[in-house]
Order: sequence, then structure tokens, then C-alpha cells
Amino acid sequence: MSDARRRVAILGGGQLGTMLAEALFDLDADVSLYDPHADAPARRRVPDVVTGRWDDRAALGRFLARADVVTYEFEHIETRWLRDVLAALPSPPPVWPSLDVLDTLRCRLAEKTFLRDAGLPHVAFAHARGRAELDAVAHAFGYPFLMKTSRGGYDGKGQFLIRGDEALEVACGTLETSIGPDFEVVLEDPLPLEAEASAIVIRDPSGATTHFPVFENTHAAGVLDVTLVPARLPEEVNRVIASLAEETARRLDVVGLLSVEFFVTRTPGSRRGGHVVSTINGGRHVYVNELAPRPHNSGHVTRRACSVSQFDALARVLVGLPAPTPRLLGTDAYCMANLLGDVWLAQGRSALDLRALDAHPELLEVVLYGKEGAKARRKMGHLVTLGASPEAARDAALAARRSLARPFGG
Amino acid sequence: MSDARRRVAILGGGQLGTMLAEALFDLDADVSLYDPHADAPARRRVPDVVTGRWDDRAALGRFLARADVVTYEFEHIETRWLRDVLAALPSPPPVWPSLDVLDTLRCRLAEKTFLRDAGLPHVAFAHARGRAELDAVAHAFGYPFLMKTSRGGYDGKGQFLIRGDEALEVACGTLETSIGPDFEVVLEDPLPLEAEASAIVIRDPSGATTHFPVFENTHAAGVLDVTLVPARLPEEVNRVIASLAEETARRLDVVGLLSVEFFVTRTPGSRRGGHVVSTINGGRHVYVNELAPRPHNSGHVTRRACSVSQFDALARVLVGLPAPTPRLLGTDAYCMANLLGDVWLAQGRSALDLRALDAHPELLEVVLYGKEGAKARRKMGHLVTLGASPEAARDAALAARRSLARPFGG
Repeated sequence: MSDARRRVAILGGGQLGTMLAEALFDLDADVSLYDPHADAPARRRVPDVVTGRWDDRAALGRFLARADVVTYEFEHIETRWLRDVLAALPSPPPVWPSLDVLDTLRCRLAEKTFLRDAGLPHVAFAHARGRAELDAVAHAFGYPFLMKTSRGGYDGKGQFLIRGDEALEVACGTLETSIGPDFEVVLEDPLPLEAEASAIVIRDPSGATTHFPVFENTHAAGVLDVTLVPARLPEEVNRVIASLAEETARRLDVVGLLSVEFFVTRTPGSRRGGHVVSTINGGRHVYVNELAPRPHNSGHVTRRACSVSQFDALARVLVGLPAPTPRLLGTDAYCMANLLGDVWLAQGRSALDLRALDAHPELLEVVLYGKEGAKARRKMGHLVTLGASPEAARDAALAARRSLARPFGG
Repeated sequence: MSDARRRVAILGGGQLGTMLAEALFDLDADVSLYDPHADAPARRRVPDVVTGRWDDRAALGRFLARADVVTYEFEHIETRWLRDVLAALPSPPPVWPSLDVLDTLRCRLAEKTFLRDAGLPHVAFAHARGRAELDAVAHAFGYPFLMKTSRGGYDGKGQFLIRGDEALEVACGTLETSIGPDFEVVLEDPLPLEAEASAIVIRDPSGATTHFPVFENTHAAGVLDVTLVPARLPEEVNRVIASLAEETARRLDVVGLLSVEFFVTRTPGSRRGGHVVSTINGGRHVYVNELAPRPHNSGHVTRRACSVSQFDALARVLVGLPAPTPRLLGTDAYCMANLLGDVWLAQGRSALDLRALDAHPELLEVVLYGKEGAKARRKMGHLVTLGASPEAARDAALAARRSLARPFGG
């Protein structure tokens, strides 16, 4: 650690990058962000935000040359360009988590293949490229299945539940139009789920590995809706989840954060390809679903629920401090509820009116991301509540959110 | 509330203005700050920071003309200039708290006079201008006394404990050199204190008035050292303090925050001029000491200890939301300890090395303000800890701070 401020470069200027920047400022780091959008949320809050295209190698090169360490707030970046740009620098800064991690996790097929090769539990899957191969693979895999694009999908985009030939035909048409004839998809066993959970792991360059408490998540139409902590799962299930999350981070050699989403089910898939590590008391099975090498939407709850937030934890690793051990604060429960653009559309306003929140004293924070232009299902903010039980915290969060989603003046 | 982002102008770009700006961003407000120093802490963290002198009426005018509402993070501003600049604007924005409040609280004599006229409890005082008047007033008031400059003093600056003629002579010389022959001072009864406390009041334009839990404060050499919450005072004393703080805010007609510092003593002063509202069970007396119409150093503890922080509370009022009712979170205690420049000087580094904090899991936050140039007694950051009791929280904070204040590499 030299006697100078460390400069951290963040690729992406959305809400995750912005909150990370503020945690880094608290540790006296300098922070620069890079985003192709001139109206990226970070521009309203952080001074040093460079607007540049991902394929503008000159601009990226100037940006990265200033950094002591580089990180990113989302996975959909062309690592090829980043590698070229970094290789051309006289002393390229490290990227945490590494570009190898990013290469694996930005592609659904590579992610699934990693899980399989590492012997980590995952839902049975198959993959196909283009219509002809998909027809053959689909018939071998059998209906029903979830079909997901291998690249670029998030928040339920590019995902289809396929129950038969007709649905497959329609989905193929959509993919050929949006991606082209070479579209690449992963087919997954659609298990009946008892619960969805996530665990965020922190890992520093020495290999020290810690984790946040396990969160319980509910999705709506493919988008995270609500996160509860503590998760309403048996202690043994939480332990298995935390241990699998740490193991996954070690296998990937992550430095920084790894967010791991899990499926919990009582019905293991019967298809080949699924690998169940342990059958837990009560006949539950746990599968790794998705991985993200960065702060996670579900982790917003840590800002109030934990001794260290996900942003503080990553900031510490980026400035060279050891991985902290976050713990849940108090004996109560916390709920994070996303505020999607639908709330703005319900009010019929561009600036959300928050006066209804005054009737909700369980509220610990409301954060609006400052995005321009409300759209349905777009993540525009979140709120966090406290309750004597997970149900009480969730009910308070849902009530607070409902009170906002009313026509203005109503 | 119109359907557009509210723009809040903050006078002063120190740590208080910066943290307020971030709370305002969370509510989707636009924020501009104004500070005469090109290296003000806000410049590293907030995009829209104007560097301009307080007496540059053109620059101030352009700055204020853009605002929907104006506030300030410190009191030592010439309200005369502000009034002139605002009067020249076609539609001047409101200043919260008002410039009348600021006029009263930026001058120690006006503040004391307000307390006396309002019948609020305060320590006996006298005032004098220049050496000749001071000699006469000092002899009438009697030794010992605390002597404080009427304007511009903070963090113990411009304060003297005067025990006799000789000390008075020396202090007069210092004041004549630093201020001039017309120096103005307030003399105060130096009571033996059982405790110091503070209470932060929130008041919105409708007159709705709420308060934070009472904090217990310890000062070292005139600078706030440690804040504990809950305060280790009988419940009845806390109630009197909270009630006096709210009453003070109502009498001043504050919109925004009023931070009220209190003395708690078992020995009421015998001099005339002190007004004791109530003798509390156990023979305790409570006096209002100082007032600040803004977030307060002691209030940093609210960022982790309370359901709403002092910055969130002020931000809500500034964007037109009702005064929230903050509450203490959990059943444990919290301690805020200031990090003064001395810690940097002890390490012998300009960028503080935080690795020693890893051994202190009770730590909930460490915030470095990003100030350039460590000086002894300069407020450069703070930390907040959690403990099962106020003593445990304080011991954890002091241990964490001690672990930082060691030579680098030691």
C-alpha cells in the first residue's frame, strides 16, 4: 500500500457503480466511472464519469491507464476489447474479479459448463446454436424446459418457458429476429422451487473468503421483487448455501465479490446433467442457478441489515484491505423491495412523489437511482424495511410500495 | 410539489454538506454546493460544486438563482451578503433554516440573548467589547469564567478558561492580535458538568417537530471526541432534554434541523443570569449550551444507530416531505468516535492505512472525509461501533481508533 490515494476505475455507471463509488470515497479512494450513456445514474452523483463507447479503445485506454485497480458493475462487456486495451498499457492495472472470471460468467453456457466441470450442483441443462440444432436438442432434452439466451440476458430478458413444438417455433422466430440465425441458447430443467436464495461472497487477493448472511428472494416476471434476511430456510440449508457460494468463489479464483443465486427444491430433476451435492434433512436439494462477479440487487438489503454493506465490502478489497466478515444486525428481519418503473407510471409523474411513505415508520431507506425515463420493469430504486419477523418486514415493504404506486393526488 | 426534480443549493462543501448531498441524491433531488476552497471535500465526491468566495455576489447570485431551496452546512456566513444577493433575484428561493435563525445562531451573544429572552435554561453569562469594557465586566462577573469570542469560534477555538487577572491579560493580548481592539466576547459560568448531551430536532414548514434520540457527548480540548447513544442519563433527563430541544426549535421557527447541545450538572451556577427550567429528580439541572441550525458532528452516529439519519431527515424536509420520526435501532448501543488529523500524523502518512481495523468487528462504518492536509485537531473522519452497552460500544470505538493511531509499519 503506497502513501497515496488509490484510484479505482469502475466499468459501468449504473446504480451499482454509483453506490460502490460512494463506499470507495468513504475510504478516501479516488474513483472514475466509464459508461456509454450520457445520462447514466452516476453522472448526477459522481464527478469523474467518462462517457464513452465500449468499443472506443482509445477512450477506454485513457480511462484504464489512470487506474490502480479496475472493477465492473455488470457482466455484459466485451472482454476481448478490454484485454487488447489493457495489453497496450505500459503497466496495466489488475482487474478484480479477473477477466477470466468475467469470460466465464458473461456467457450462460460457459457458466453452466464451469459448474458442471467443478462438480458444483446445478440444474440439468443442454445447449444449442441455431434452429436446426435446437430442434434436435429440444427433442432429446424433452418438454417442458426453460430456454435462455447464452449472452446478454438479464432480468428475465431472453428467457422462455417452452412447453411444446408450437412455443419453440414462436421463440425461435423471436430469437432469429432479435439475435440472428446463429442464436445460442441454454435449455434448463424447470424445477418446482420451494425457495430462491442468494449469497454474496467476499474474497481478497490472499484467498481469504467470507460471506454475507443468506438472502431469500422472490422474483416477479423474471425480475427480482423482494429480498428477505434472514432467509426462512432451515439453518442447515443456509449453511450448505453459504458453503457452496464460498466454494464457487474459490473455484473461480474471484477477487472481490461473487453473488451466487440458488434454487431450493424438494423435487430433484430426473434429467441427466443435474448434479446434487447433498440431500439435506427434510429432503431438500440446493442448486446454484446464476453467478454474478459484482454487487447484486439482492445485496442492497446489506446497506441496512449488515455490519458491512456489499459495497463497503468490495470497496475494502479494492483498496487493499482484508475481506471483512459481515454479520446481521440485531435480532429482527429486513426486507428490500425493488421500485420498478411501474411505480412511476402508476403515479403518472417523472419525479416520484414520496409523501405516502410518511405513514410507514418501518422504512429504513428509500433510494431512487436517478434514472431518466420510467419504463415498466426497469429498476429505478428500492426501499428497505425492518420488522419483528421476515413476514412483518415483507408486509411493511409491500405496503410502503403499494402506497407509492397510486395515481398522483389520489 | 411540482413534477420536476427539486434543486437544493448547499452553502459549504465540507463533510456535512457532502453527506447531505448524498442523502438528497437518494431522494432524486439535484444538488449544487458552493465553497470558497478549491479542495473542499465535496469536490471529490459531488459533480456540481462551485468554487467562489463568500463575498463574490455575482457568483453567489448565479448559484442561488438555480435553486428551489437553499440550506447551509455551517453558520459562519455573512448573512448581509446573502440577503443582498437573494433580494436581487427575480424569485428568490427560501433559505431553510431562515437567515433570521442564522443571524441569531452565528453570534454567541445573540444566541445567549435569544435563550434568555425565550426563558430557556442557559448558563449565566455576561458580554464585553474591547479591553476596557472587558476589565470592568470581568470584575463584576468574577473569576473563574469561560471566555468565548462572540463570532467565528468553533471546536474550542477562541475559548479561554480565565482564573485571574494574569490569564485575562494574556487572553486579551491574543484577541487583540487575532481579531483587533474591538473583539467581542461572552463570559460564562464554568459549571462542573456531570455530562454533555445533544439532541437534534427536525421541523418541517407545517411546524411538525420531531427529534432524534438524545446523544451523550465527550469533548477533548474543546473538540467533540465521542458520541454515545443511548445516553447514559435517567429517562426523565432525556425527556427534559428532548422537550427543551423541540421548544428551542419552535421558538426559533426553524425549518430543517436544529442541533442543540446541553450541559447536565448537579451544581447550578450561583451567578445571576442563569435560568433553570426544572430541577430534575436526583437534583440534576439541564442547560442549553450551544445551538447549530444544521446537521451536527454528534449526529454522525445516526447514520447507523437510527431508522433515519440526520442527513436523510434534513433531505426529506428540503424536498418537501414531512419531518420523519427517527428511532433507535435495536437494543444495543452505538458509539461515534471522531478521527482527527492527529491519527494521520501518528501514522506519518497522507493516505491513512486502515488495515488495523480488520481486528475490530464491532465497527459499523469508517468514513474518511477526503480532506487535503492532516493537521492536529482537524476533523478528518469518524468511525461508528456497536456494543451490548454504551461502555462496550465506546471501548470498541476507542480501541479501533487507537489501533489506527500508530506509526505505519509498527
